[in-house]
Amino acid sequence: MTHETRIDDLPIRDELRGKSPYGAPQLDVPVRLNTNENPYPLPEPLVARIAERVAEAARHLNRYPDRDATELRTELAKYLTRTAGHEVTMRHVWAANGSNEVLQQLLQTFGGPGRTAIGFEPSYSMHALISRGTGTGWIPGPRREDFTIDVAAAERAIAEHRPNAVFVCSPNNPTGTAVGAETVLRLYEAAQAARADTGGALVVVDEAYGEFSHHPSLLPLIEGRPNLVVSRTMSKAFGAAGLRLGYLAADPAVVDAVQLVRLPYHLSAVTQATALAALEHTDTLLGYVEQLKTERDRLVTELRAMGCEVTDSDANFVQFGRFADSPAAWRAILGHGVLVRDNGVPGWLRVTAGTPAENDAFLDAVRAVLKENQR
Amino acid sequence: MTHETRIDDLPIRDELRGKSPYGAPQLDVPVRLNTNENPYPLPEPLVARIAERVAEAARHLNRYPDRDATELRTELAKYLTRTAGHEVTMRHVWAANGSNEVLQQLLQTFGGPGRTAIGFEPSYSMHALISRGTGTGWIPGPRREDFTIDVAAAERAIAEHRPNAVFVCSPNNPTGTAVGAETVLRLYEAAQAARADTGGALVVVDEAYGEFSHHPSLLPLIEGRPNLVVSRTMSKAFGAAGLRLGYLAADPAVVDAVQLVRLPYHLSAVTQATALAALEHTDTLLGYVEQLKTERDRLVTELRAMGCEVTDSDANFVQFGRFADSPAAWRAILGHGVLVRDNGVPGWLRVTAGTPAENDAFLDAVRAVLKENQR
Repeated sequence: MTHETRIDDLPIRDELRGKSPYGAPQLDVPVRLNTNENPYPLPEPLVARIAERVAEAARHLNRYPDRDATELRTELAKYLTRTAGHEVTMRHVWAANGSNEVLQQLLQTFGGPGRTAIGFEPSYSMHALISRGTGTGWIPGPRREDFTIDVAAAERAIAEHRPNAVFVCSPNNPTGTAVGAETVLRLYEAAQAARADTGGALVVVDEAYGEFSHHPSLLPLIEGRPNLVVSRTMSKAFGAAGLRLGYLAADPAVVDAVQLVRLPYHLSAVTQATALAALEHTDTLLGYVEQLKTERDRLVTELRAMGCEVTDSDANFVQFGRFADSPAAWRAILGHGVLVRDNGVPGWLRVTAGTPAENDAFLDAVRAVLKENQR
Repeated sequence: MTHETRIDDLPIRDELRGKSPYGAPQLDVPVRLNTNENPYPLPEPLVARIAERVAEAARHLNRYPDRDATELRTELAKYLTRTAGHEVTMRHVWAANGSNEVLQQLLQTFGGPGRTAIGFEPSYSMHALISRGTGTGWIPGPRREDFTIDVAAAERAIAEHRPNAVFVCSPNNPTGTAVGAETVLRLYEAAQAARADTGGALVVVDEAYGEFSHHPSLLPLIEGRPNLVVSRTMSKAFGAAGLRLGYLAADPAVVDAVQLVRLPYHLSAVTQATALAALEHTDTLLGYVEQLKTERDRLVTELRAMGCEVTDSDANFVQFGRFADSPAAWRAILGHGVLVRDNGVPGWLRVTAGTPAENDAFLDAVRAVLKENQR
């Protein structure tokens, strides 16, 4: 009899013992609306352009990639300048393998052992996980019943815990809730005041779903606020979850600072080439975003019409409920061939806005489940 | 007058203050032999295949990539089984964005705050940097004058400092020195004995340059040693530094464990597709490796013939000296249009084996510099 080594036989860190890897279940189901992916495949002309640019890059693949991703950061800066209401340059922009890596680099620089970060829960659970992964203490901050941020309560939490980093997710995942500029400014002031001893605290506005919002980007707030960072991703609006391209905009000093911790040559030449190709097709891709916003609004309206509670959404997904037993509701909807997400918010589930046909299938499934429960 | 924010105005971690980012100078010089890149561009049929596989991947780029990189890990396992003298499966293999990210994940799992790692210096400086970046204390271990590992001295250092991770780079960067299986086994035993309290210590054999060695891979040592990891990269032997694809082979429990800290979907669909295409062309690429080994041996012979001291090399680079003033020698060689690397080992410089023409240019440059110094 051979003994198979298990994780706990290894000399891993104590706090990892008994943990499981993060990730939504990947089930083979006709309609998958659980991971906030963009349902529209990239258009064929863009696929062809990606192949072309990647082939160019592959001809020099024996060489390390541009360590500073200069061309990509320049194009991302142009995109933000054009769409987010504030002029930025390459020096304000930094890119990495998904916004998760951007956030990890920020916490390695501004968080880490002996430091803490706060977020207002429920929110994107990776904020807490990346904090833990970088040795940063995590403080779960409060949110109102309606999932908006109670600024006074948040200010009190910041004054009490004095975090070194503050996460504000807008639109918030998984609730869809947008956060106003005034709220961010008050939290920024509170965080700087609470951590005057360390020269302030970093405030990260996570705009992964920014392009889907009814409201303008919070990017202009970086002006004159060197400790404020806006993070973004190409996963959602650019329909490129498979590309893993996240970025941030901030004072150039922040961009300089994260380079102290980034792994050298972290961003491959094929990733840079693919992202540059996608940025050439921005207008087409933002057209899909408009369609998805319309579909998202339809989901809100139709779910409310069938009696569901629905949280106002500025993202490409909708939080709906309330269910006495949300895991049971999740299973029931899955029984109708539609995979949604149970983010562990009691009473609520989250559905991604898909194609019109996918959304119809989802709405039919919910209708059927509600009917079954009435019998 | 406006005040420009500097890094030190930001609330960064104290230990980052005054530091500069890692990275070799990127100078525009005719012959660049400073970063151990493979001088042979990928062959055109492989470039075409990459474009084809990336286009396929791009058609689903709106979806997240295979989080577990199953196909890629399967093909990497086949490659190792075929070339490294030991049968492994997908369950033994893990891949990430460069071996730097592999090492970072290992240290997040087995190192981190309150833990330490040792390496035998001079060695790959990223081992120390990634240790620091993950909050792992770094212990510089000893090496002999001739750059081999003094096992008895290393055992004493391990017994004294009780590190949680031990790095053994073979062939060693920047010296080119291979490490024998017997040495690794003794260090492994010493590390397990010293850290019996935590269930042992991780031993990482960094074989980034393994394919260029005169000696077989140390991969078979993972059998029955769950705390031993071999790390590899496609940057060098596969001529794909621009791809950023590193991997490890170890007990499947280690592969399970790093998934507790890896960022979800860390490896993009385009990276996976490009790496799979390159693996289809393994035989061609390993043909280039054979040419480079011949050129590497020629560099050793010719440098010795002109009176240089040269460290025996099992890598795609050669350490040569000794210079009374190695920074001055570096500048003098650069003056002849050839960029080599000053790794800060007093008296020594490192040159990457390039194409025959590049190596001739380098040898001519050294010859000229030696002559100038004799005048």
